[in-house]
Amino acid sequence: MNEEQNKYISDSIRSIPDFPKPGILFHDVTSLLLDPKAFQYCIDAFAERYRGQKVDAIAGFEARGFIFGAPLALALQCAFVPLRKPGKLPGETIGADYQLEYGSDRIEMHVGSVKEGDKVVLVDDLIATGGTMGAGIKLMNKVGANVLEAACVMELPDLKGRGKLGDLPLFVLIEKEGL
Amino acid sequence: MNEEQNKYISDSIRSIPDFPKPGILFHDVTSLLLDPKAFQYCIDAFAERYRGQKVDAIAGFEARGFIFGAPLALALQCAFVPLRKPGKLPGETIGADYQLEYGSDRIEMHVGSVKEGDKVVLVDDLIATGGTMGAGIKLMNKVGANVLEAACVMELPDLKGRGKLGDLPLFVLIEKEGL
Repeated sequence: MNEEQNKYISDSIRSIPDFPKPGILFHDVTSLLLDPKAFQYCIDAFAERYRGQKVDAIAGFEARGFIFGAPLALALQCAFVPLRKPGKLPGETIGADYQLEYGSDRIEMHVGSVKEGDKVVLVDDLIATGGTMGAGIKLMNKVGANVLEAACVMELPDLKGRGKLGDLPLFVLIEKEGL
Repeated sequence: MNEEQNKYISDSIRSIPDFPKPGILFHDVTSLLLDPKAFQYCIDAFAERYRGQKVDAIAGFEARGFIFGAPLALALQCAFVPLRKPGKLPGETIGADYQLEYGSDRIEMHVGSVKEGDKVVLVDDLIATGGTMGAGIKLMNKVGANVLEAACVMELPDLKGRGKLGDLPLFVLIEKEGL
């Protein structure tokens, strides 16, 4: 991806003050989705990076991670594995918990959807504090998957989410200021 | 889509008894997503149907509708508009309510994401009782969109969801028995 495409993606993401609470500037990826050129740049950049690495599965986080993960899995012609909130998946699940500012949350996937040794890329729209992504790594480690990388459209470096990923590399298309 | 592809898609969807409650047979589209050939057949069938119709936006329902809607929007190079549960979208929203067995629910979209006269296709993985899809139509009518069709991978005809769509045509790839 060149600098121009990078800027194009960044400019297509509008920022909304005071969401979900006062003082937070929310970077809204839905404005990017209205522009197929910007959306396609994102998928192409991810596909270019992982093509040739024989990825077995793209795991995408509910819900915005589905929007980027599913087209990427098709581009790579590999499996798409949805990582969901508790109680959403109908089959037997395995999960991992993570801490929120107040309380905790959990992500789950179907048992058998990722097998030991499978090469997996974790996909989300955004990495902020890194809590969700950290849980994704924990979950993949539980089933013995080989996680290649975490991939996000946007990083908010101020929130230091990379620190939650251990040794796992993080690939992002753009950075935004953020609290 | 030919009969063989149709059967291939149908066979890739596993059925799980007693989810989300006893007596319900749940058709689990996540098993289809593990097979890129089956997933691609779905997107190709949708894209083939709407290509050439100058669709302005694909609107996908949270959360599984994102998985099919986003790749379809890319295939058609049109906007992708996520229809979300209340409180998820950061900008100004417009919504529509629908009845559940007990109580009601609501879907929302960003104001301005679909404009008056825009040609829209509503996408979800499944049409069961048709409540969600009906709310999608109501929402699009509120903003004066021109809804071309509702498109789903699966229909459960026993649940008579088509009856909730008024005059809008429904396009589905496969049918399953279901309660």
